[in-house]
Amino acid sequence: MITVLAGGTGGAKFVQGVMRILPPEELTVIVNTGDDLTWWGLHVSPDLDSITYALAGILSRERGWGIEGDTFTCLERMRQLGAPAWFQLGDRDLATHLRRTQLLTVHTLTEATSEIASEMGVRARILPMSDDRVETRVLTAAGDLSFQEYFVRERYRVPVKGVRFVGAEQAQAAPGVVEAIRDAAAVLIAPSNPVTSIGPILSVPGIRAALCQTAVIAVSPIVGGAAVSGPAGELMKTQQLPVSIAGVAQAYEDFLDALIADERDRPHAAEGERLGVQVTFTNTIMDSDEAKAELARAAVSAIIPARAAPGSPARAARDGVVAGRAR
Amino acid sequence: MITVLAGGTGGAKFVQGVMRILPPEELTVIVNTGDDLTWWGLHVSPDLDSITYALAGILSRERGWGIEGDTFTCLERMRQLGAPAWFQLGDRDLATHLRRTQLLTVHTLTEATSEIASEMGVRARILPMSDDRVETRVLTAAGDLSFQEYFVRERYRVPVKGVRFVGAEQAQAAPGVVEAIRDAAAVLIAPSNPVTSIGPILSVPGIRAALCQTAVIAVSPIVGGAAVSGPAGELMKTQQLPVSIAGVAQAYEDFLDALIADERDRPHAAEGERLGVQVTFTNTIMDSDEAKAELARAAVSAIIPARAAPGSPARAARDGVVAGRAR
Repeated sequence: MITVLAGGTGGAKFVQGVMRILPPEELTVIVNTGDDLTWWGLHVSPDLDSITYALAGILSRERGWGIEGDTFTCLERMRQLGAPAWFQLGDRDLATHLRRTQLLTVHTLTEATSEIASEMGVRARILPMSDDRVETRVLTAAGDLSFQEYFVRERYRVPVKGVRFVGAEQAQAAPGVVEAIRDAAAVLIAPSNPVTSIGPILSVPGIRAALCQTAVIAVSPIVGGAAVSGPAGELMKTQQLPVSIAGVAQAYEDFLDALIADERDRPHAAEGERLGVQVTFTNTIMDSDEAKAELARAAVSAIIPARAAPGSPARAARDGVVAGRAR
Repeated sequence: MITVLAGGTGGAKFVQGVMRILPPEELTVIVNTGDDLTWWGLHVSPDLDSITYALAGILSRERGWGIEGDTFTCLERMRQLGAPAWFQLGDRDLATHLRRTQLLTVHTLTEATSEIASEMGVRARILPMSDDRVETRVLTAAGDLSFQEYFVRERYRVPVKGVRFVGAEQAQAAPGVVEAIRDAAAVLIAPSNPVTSIGPILSVPGIRAALCQTAVIAVSPIVGGAAVSGPAGELMKTQQLPVSIAGVAQAYEDFLDALIADERDRPHAAEGERLGVQVTFTNTIMDSDEAKAELARAAVSAIIPARAAPGSPARAARDGVVAGRAR
């Protein structure tokens, strides 16, 4: 059993790779819900949608979000009526949000997610990180924004001062999340933004602790000192993380065993190893189905060495730290 | 100022005729909301939609409901997901229901209706009959159904035992409704189903009383002993109303001054007159824009004679009845 932590377009692409090399019954994906928003009165969960569409084989290749071949007739009409239209929902996509919103009147988000995935023929298990509301807020020069306001409406062009996860302290991990992490052969962290895609998942009490009990392999979203896409670099800086594979390793330092990084970062191998993490270099640019599968294979191949605790450098280094000082 | 009571496809077509002969500022339409339903979690108001689309010039000519040229992509997707799909919402149409549902979280139905109409450039005034929930229930051999379940899902093929308007006794007429009736030069009743389109409006306390204070002209939806479309005939029978112009006059007997009926019913002129109603015969089949305008003209032309109370046969007959026995 493999568990993937995922969010954003990098997460969806990586999951597409994993599903090409693993039977769906062996895969659990734990998904960021910090970006969830109420849009036109509907509960929209951008990352749950992308992961579900990816696993259902209907994710738009062109856009990286929404459903392949979708139309935007309702959106255009909403625009004509003067409704906000900066967040784009396709006509097919709308059906997902209508279903979820209705299901949430009597079900938890975990149950609604499972029902919708099942309706789409998805056999892997998709879990939201929490059934409680944890909202990623991005403090910017233009005000305190929701993640989608920052990312979509402002196109992440406003300077960021900080990020917080409102509600995280009171939130509980969704049913099955801690077990899916603790009992997995390994947890793979998708090449998602460490701050706003994986960060919200880690903010939920109990999840970091569970990760410390499992072999964890992360795929770096940073290539050649910059994010492959999106604002990961800018956001890492706000967390005092270097925009490098070392920064990614540092974001996950309390539980990371191995890091999959891009060939282009091989010159920086020593930085990752200084953090006690085994680093594997490969092509991490997921520009084809085969590249996605190859990256997933590289991550899965890192499981055995990563599990070889306490002999692995990661475990040894961590255990040393744990023994040596409070963490 | 002219006020029209309307519901159903006959109501929408008639309003299209009225808007061709009157300035929009002089027109108020009071609309049946007994068919309103919660569909996919959205507040759908089929008659308010049809009237609003008619006045905005975007009502589908082909279907008689929904928006001209609309697509059904979301509906098709909902069907694929296993959601109920017998009630059809187009993609553009969906925008209306999304807007209404959102507006209703902080506004009354009257306010939401006005806002949506304004967003669509409608200048005539559209009023729901009530801001309170009044639900038309059709008792049939297949159970106690909502109007849309009976009309759309069952295609009105199940035998009807009775009709009731749940919530009517506790309902209040929406703000402006009683005044729009009482202060109008005349009230025109569209050729809508007297039982389930106009009946719910009349069930709201205070509306019948207001109609008794105004000149009222109804257009018969019955032509040659049958409904032009829909289940009006069947439903009139359940109310012990003959399926004829006399039955229409009888449905409105406590306030009706004049009836516009189809040429084909001229042989039955005496039946209407026996009820003390002035009957005008014309073409009532609204199969073109010109036919719609002509029918509206005929109805408006009947205002002057109808207003000649107490000399008019209607008023005289009514006043006689009022004086002679309890009503």
